[in-house]
Amino acid sequence: MPSACILIIGNEILSGRTKDLNLSYLAERLTDLGIDVGEARVIADNRDTIADTINTCRRGHDYVFTTGGIGPTHDDVTTDAVAQAFDVANTLNPEAVELLKSAYKDNRVLNEARLRMAHAPEGAILIDNPVSKAPGFQMDNVFVMAGVPRIMQAMFEGIVDRLVGGPPLLSRTLSVYLAEGDIAGRLKQLQELYDDVEMGSYPFYRARKFGCSIVLRSRDRGRLNEAAGDLAGIMRELGGEPMEDEDVEGEVAQGSSEPAAEHST
Amino acid sequence: MPSACILIIGNEILSGRTKDLNLSYLAERLTDLGIDVGEARVIADNRDTIADTINTCRRGHDYVFTTGGIGPTHDDVTTDAVAQAFDVANTLNPEAVELLKSAYKDNRVLNEARLRMAHAPEGAILIDNPVSKAPGFQMDNVFVMAGVPRIMQAMFEGIVDRLVGGPPLLSRTLSVYLAEGDIAGRLKQLQELYDDVEMGSYPFYRARKFGCSIVLRSRDRGRLNEAAGDLAGIMRELGGEPMEDEDVEGEVAQGSSEPAAEHST
Repeated sequence: MPSACILIIGNEILSGRTKDLNLSYLAERLTDLGIDVGEARVIADNRDTIADTINTCRRGHDYVFTTGGIGPTHDDVTTDAVAQAFDVANTLNPEAVELLKSAYKDNRVLNEARLRMAHAPEGAILIDNPVSKAPGFQMDNVFVMAGVPRIMQAMFEGIVDRLVGGPPLLSRTLSVYLAEGDIAGRLKQLQELYDDVEMGSYPFYRARKFGCSIVLRSRDRGRLNEAAGDLAGIMRELGGEPMEDEDVEGEVAQGSSEPAAEHST
Repeated sequence: MPSACILIIGNEILSGRTKDLNLSYLAERLTDLGIDVGEARVIADNRDTIADTINTCRRGHDYVFTTGGIGPTHDDVTTDAVAQAFDVANTLNPEAVELLKSAYKDNRVLNEARLRMAHAPEGAILIDNPVSKAPGFQMDNVFVMAGVPRIMQAMFEGIVDRLVGGPPLLSRTLSVYLAEGDIAGRLKQLQELYDDVEMGSYPFYRARKFGCSIVLRSRDRGRLNEAAGDLAGIMRELGGEPMEDEDVEGEVAQGSSEPAAEHST
């Protein structure tokens, strides 16, 4: 299965000023496309850091997707950094210049700052920006996109046909009102029987009751269904009633530390 | 200034099933405490990956904060991984056992799965969990916390006095109804005059007008104020009216790709 690394570039994310919205979008879409997101990193607007990280990640993954740092201001250094990573010049891209010229028909001038957005590393293939024209670009397996979520999403949807995914990962989710700690032992045994079905457990607390959503993921529908059947049996044996597709994301949904003793102390 | 790396651990974040809420919380709090978040990584629930990443990051940063993977189920492997990273045993921690015993006074038993939450690497110092008792732990400069945001936040607030920050980074934000591309040239010149004031530009689009928030950050209040004064002057020269502290996070707030041509095409 092809793997991807997502690089979120921007000091504003690391300082907490801005909440990142791009990781979850890309993670969900790539998973849907049969591309496994192996890791994500959030890094600063620093040319050497970006270049080094891109070089590490493009060798370790089939795809790298970056967001942020391709605007007109001095703190937008991603394009420079990608050129550095690939050891090529960052040059004015004629196609990008035309795009920007067609865009600036009002009183805003295509000044030096805005022409920064018409630069790309030598050999880059542009990525269309249907929202605001200034393009992203692709260098080999690295896709460089804007940080603004609406623009990033439009750019990503335009490059989907450049990506080759594996068979999609199928998933089934069974939720149950049982505390994680009560089902954990049986779940571990079940996981050992199904090394081709990944099993994740995510606790929730709803209507004053502990519960957990067990997410099963596999490329083999038969095995997935078999595991789900076994899991439903285990849940019933333990006194719970499995709820299919009820993937509860409650107040304690993230992570998997059981809020076990919350109401017992 | 001390630096930190944040590690968000969990397959559910990389698959897009769960939106991470911990990074922005930690980023904001650490910045407030005078600790620079140098990078963040999102990694899978894989023991070797977690151990390797922790070893890379604890050597490159003063602090490492992890979230996720310390619950009772088989997919919670962070504690094992930290033990592996430090090359020590992952053992039952007597203090943690007592905490869990006191917590499980209802009909839930302290079974083998739940006792996983009472394990810690040899030499670890526990991190209090006022929400659900099962503790996190500290190994050297690595702080291991739950993934559930409410629990993670409570754990973090309990370890603040173990952290030593530098002088806090002071910031001022001036927003203006000028497109990024119109102020970028002057902003670059200003940045060159103030190498001790970091300047970031973040575009927004509000009331059908382009604008940008310029965030100035420095440890020196005098220089910060001087730069803000100069910036306000530049904004007025360009025909804009600076709005102090109006840090606009609009629909195009994330990143800095100017949505320049949005209404000109």
